[in-house]
Amino acid sequence: MKSSHFLLPALVASLLAAPVAQAHSSTDLASSPTAPAKKPAGITRIDPTFWWVGMKNPKLQLLVHGPGIANSTASLRYEGVTLDGTQKLESPNYLVVNLTVSPTAKPGQLKLEFKGAKNFSYSYELKARSTPGDKTQVQGLSTQDFIYFLMPDRFSNGDPKNDYIKGMKAPAAARDSMYSRHGGDLKGIANHFDYFKTLGATALWLTPIVENDQPKASYHGYALTDYYTVDRRYGTNEEYRSFVRNAHQNGLKVVQDVVLNHLGSESYLFRDQPAKDWFHQWPTFTRSSFRDAAFNDPHGSQYDRKLFGEGWFDTTMPDLNQSNPLVATYVIQNNLWWVENTGIDAYRIDTYSYSDRNFLMQWGQALLDEYPQLGMFGETWVQGTAQQAYFARNILPSTDGFKSNLPGVTDFQLQYAINEALTKDAGWTEGISKLYYTLHDDWLYENPMRNVVFLDNHDMSRFYSVIGEDFAKYKMGLAWLLTTRGIPQLYYGTEVLMKNFSNPDGKVREDFPGGFPGDKKNLFTSRSGQEAEAFDYVSKLANYRRTHEFLHAGKLMQFIPDQGVYTYFRYSDAGTVMVMMNSNKEEKTVDMARFAERLNGFSSGVEVTTGAAIADLKTVKIPGRTAWVVELKK
Amino acid sequence: MKSSHFLLPALVASLLAAPVAQAHSSTDLASSPTAPAKKPAGITRIDPTFWWVGMKNPKLQLLVHGPGIANSTASLRYEGVTLDGTQKLESPNYLVVNLTVSPTAKPGQLKLEFKGAKNFSYSYELKARSTPGDKTQVQGLSTQDFIYFLMPDRFSNGDPKNDYIKGMKAPAAARDSMYSRHGGDLKGIANHFDYFKTLGATALWLTPIVENDQPKASYHGYALTDYYTVDRRYGTNEEYRSFVRNAHQNGLKVVQDVVLNHLGSESYLFRDQPAKDWFHQWPTFTRSSFRDAAFNDPHGSQYDRKLFGEGWFDTTMPDLNQSNPLVATYVIQNNLWWVENTGIDAYRIDTYSYSDRNFLMQWGQALLDEYPQLGMFGETWVQGTAQQAYFARNILPSTDGFKSNLPGVTDFQLQYAINEALTKDAGWTEGISKLYYTLHDDWLYENPMRNVVFLDNHDMSRFYSVIGEDFAKYKMGLAWLLTTRGIPQLYYGTEVLMKNFSNPDGKVREDFPGGFPGDKKNLFTSRSGQEAEAFDYVSKLANYRRTHEFLHAGKLMQFIPDQGVYTYFRYSDAGTVMVMMNSNKEEKTVDMARFAERLNGFSSGVEVTTGAAIADLKTVKIPGRTAWVVELKK
Repeated sequence: MKSSHFLLPALVASLLAAPVAQAHSSTDLASSPTAPAKKPAGITRIDPTFWWVGMKNPKLQLLVHGPGIANSTASLRYEGVTLDGTQKLESPNYLVVNLTVSPTAKPGQLKLEFKGAKNFSYSYELKARSTPGDKTQVQGLSTQDFIYFLMPDRFSNGDPKNDYIKGMKAPAAARDSMYSRHGGDLKGIANHFDYFKTLGATALWLTPIVENDQPKASYHGYALTDYYTVDRRYGTNEEYRSFVRNAHQNGLKVVQDVVLNHLGSESYLFRDQPAKDWFHQWPTFTRSSFRDAAFNDPHGSQYDRKLFGEGWFDTTMPDLNQSNPLVATYVIQNNLWWVENTGIDAYRIDTYSYSDRNFLMQWGQALLDEYPQLGMFGETWVQGTAQQAYFARNILPSTDGFKSNLPGVTDFQLQYAINEALTKDAGWTEGISKLYYTLHDDWLYENPMRNVVFLDNHDMSRFYSVIGEDFAKYKMGLAWLLTTRGIPQLYYGTEVLMKNFSNPDGKVREDFPGGFPGDKKNLFTSRSGQEAEAFDYVSKLANYRRTHEFLHAGKLMQFIPDQGVYTYFRYSDAGTVMVMMNSNKEEKTVDMARFAERLNGFSSGVEVTTGAAIADLKTVKIPGRTAWVVELKK
Repeated sequence: MKSSHFLLPALVASLLAAPVAQAHSSTDLASSPTAPAKKPAGITRIDPTFWWVGMKNPKLQLLVHGPGIANSTASLRYEGVTLDGTQKLESPNYLVVNLTVSPTAKPGQLKLEFKGAKNFSYSYELKARSTPGDKTQVQGLSTQDFIYFLMPDRFSNGDPKNDYIKGMKAPAAARDSMYSRHGGDLKGIANHFDYFKTLGATALWLTPIVENDQPKASYHGYALTDYYTVDRRYGTNEEYRSFVRNAHQNGLKVVQDVVLNHLGSESYLFRDQPAKDWFHQWPTFTRSSFRDAAFNDPHGSQYDRKLFGEGWFDTTMPDLNQSNPLVATYVIQNNLWWVENTGIDAYRIDTYSYSDRNFLMQWGQALLDEYPQLGMFGETWVQGTAQQAYFARNILPSTDGFKSNLPGVTDFQLQYAINEALTKDAGWTEGISKLYYTLHDDWLYENPMRNVVFLDNHDMSRFYSVIGEDFAKYKMGLAWLLTTRGIPQLYYGTEVLMKNFSNPDGKVREDFPGGFPGDKKNLFTSRSGQEAEAFDYVSKLANYRRTHEFLHAGKLMQFIPDQGVYTYFRYSDAGTVMVMMNSNKEEKTVDMARFAERLNGFSSGVEVTTGAAIADLKTVKIPGRTAWVVELKK
């Protein structure tokens, strides 16, 4: 397949014809005799769109975009800010301007003067940083959190005004196609803060909220076209800032989904490429192998590593070359910008392993230098705990120049394990034994408690379908999710038994019932039967988890599964919870003597979700396909 | 089940009644008025049975066994040897005597004087060490080696005189039962040195050759009853020394199989226990959980760790407590003794993970301190490469006090992978892809080239049966075995298509046809059809491997499998071999362009086993179920 994305002169011209509002020309275009006939002089945009004084890193690199700007010289005069130099790129329409913003600089409008064929100035804003105590302060993530993961387009339509956005390439919502925009937005999510709180969630992870102005199928958000703008179909930048502040006021954290590896082919950066080496270029369209193993195979070939890391994720998703320091800085500054601008609490990093290894280390370091408390977890859809741990902070010395600084990762290995535990009979290592063996490998992490555990996500078949819509198994899975180690994440709708398989029709991304005008069913307000039971089960456990430190932050002790029954404890000085999972169809009698080291000092227990008393801790009979979450009593 | 092994006074008495030949009483038993009526004074035995001057570690700890010996005092006078002290144990029949043998001590008979109720002396031999250049020198293992693994009882009966050993608990060979002795011996193995050489093997690994004087089913050798004696049904200690020397002269190394974890219940050490804390004692017989994961589960319980490490391997295999320093020293000295006494080249360590962690480190260190060149590989029948690497020298810092010093391990993970590659269709990670992913994890080892790779062993279903007696798959498996990284090991008879499943009848340990008098079929001398073809295939590849450094010691580069075809290269400055495995039933056309970084500089190739030319390295058509081993030509 030939790529059609490399040079699009007509589109570039039209893009350059629309300077953004904040570009203030100091010269009168019409009066300039040297102005090119069809290109108005001026600055189309400067990224970052604004910045702050008082950042720990005083360096600031501006990417100035404007017709022929490369032929201009830049200067400034602003107390505490120095111009370190400028750099031309291949495209005449870009100029890199390197600044140092000293700690003494004050907030204000920095006047950048450009001189060339035309002279003009640009007023660049340096803001004051938010102050401690603000509701915009970054909180990070902890084991106390319970993340609710949703797709903004598919959750709830709270603002009909943004259902049609003139000028966008897919301007109108169209709920009749799984691959079109459905009209969900930030307002729709904010309308349900009470719902999340009732459920016991403490954090919201939204698929990317940045602009995806692609003609097709960009409702998921992973093909960004503007690093600095919230997709207008979700709301404005200011509305997103308010959304985060509002969430914080409601006791909800916000996790922003960030894509480091690629962008959308309609991005201005790709349509008018600063230089060819900003992207991984291929003579013809070449897809990534999707084989992360190539990243660090000690026996690997250059060929496989290049194909994995530099191949495109999709025809509409050009692959960024982050080994280019200008690209690295562009992306890092953008991700610092969102944190400072909005006060988000954490980043979930999409396709983490696909990026340049040095860039990944640099990115993590830059973020943590500025925001030590920032939560970060990378997507690691990989094979085996060693490989997963490789992409998190781990105990391993680097042998290949890469050392991850991510506190945690999305724990796919445990996701494989819980799915197998509930769909395959118990064997020596199979079925529920896989949960035991997977947690066993935790010794490889620096701290496995920072991993995000989950039953499913937007790329996978929904949990309830995978387990054959078996409600007993459903409760087992949820009990496990909310009691194992790490930070649990729930994919939207799992709490009300939403289902479907990932292939072939995308229906794992259906709209939340009741989130859209005209929905016949409203599961926010009116649940009955098993949907109600499911919601109440999750809510009860999640709220118990949140308020019982020993369950979320306590140590975990697991015992080797015996006859398909897997038992583990979460404990601290404050208390102990015993979780017992019987994966068999039939009831099992369990001699509790072998758990003595955790049962000592306790005489009975109460099952948290049902309130049932367990009077005798010597021998118990646990029904088939059941998970007990038992708080032990003295 | 109740154990009947803890106290057997009658047996102890009979054992003590038979002092060994080298105990020389300095008093006349009959003339001593204080001699106990039924116990002759003297030393039953001293372990180590003899020692050497000039060992790097000058310390020597003697375990003296004799009736009531604990009540004696010991003394000696020997130039360069000092008596550091003695120690009594719970049993009155043991005395620990600690010596220092200085570097200046000369070989000779060290007279140990014992004074007590009776006075007597014991002449203890201090030998000279073998000198460099001797054929008894330890050679270690390298990637050039190809290990032939056999069970001495089941390989060949070369000496009918040892088919009946009077006084042993299973004195007679009985070939009609799979669980009896069949009469194989050292002479039988030595008779076939030419066979091994023709096959291309360079090393022999025998299941343990030490005495297993158990009444039942000890033909495998893993229930030792005397640490210092070769099982007389195989030959004498002197015959074993000659066997090793003879093997070396024939270009064959010897790997000794050692069991650190347990011994046989009929051992004198267990029947007359020096102290209860020499063994892991249980109120009733308690079997190990066989779950090595308990060894290092960061979430593990004391209960599971104890059950795994201290539970008995079998009713007849008491579990040694190597955390007792006396036990540790006893075992370590014994393993040094065999190396020094015979010149064996390597140890294969049985049930490696079952022993005390500090002991394992101490054991490896002591062996390597004395014999830096000694080969060592531990049995690691575990799950996952991280866990397997944990038991070898690896790149991991210790988080739990254990740091393995084994150069390599038995590579079970690759064994799982090659079996899956040949029995399951290729998928993203399944089938032949599993070979790729398993080798990928090699980054965890210090040096994966020291791992021993294999298709099957004495505890598993035989390879040829597992692959459904499919000769095409057989050749693929053997081609892989002899070209992948590491030191290949072949289980006896695989080269002539011996088969059977491990359950339920033990027939994976059948006699080698032609190894025993009266055998109708003799596969040593007369092979035809596929048996001949199989032997020749292995022989051709093994001899090619041995003589082509780039194939065994060269680097490995693998490419991600594509459509069920897996391709890798072994290469050095001296040359390059390409291995291509097509796991599909049907022929595949392979575009070789992606292998350019290894094909550059070469223009054609020759398939090593068939001699077929590959004229064009641009595109090849590889038949279904085929492995090519192609030497590239300039």
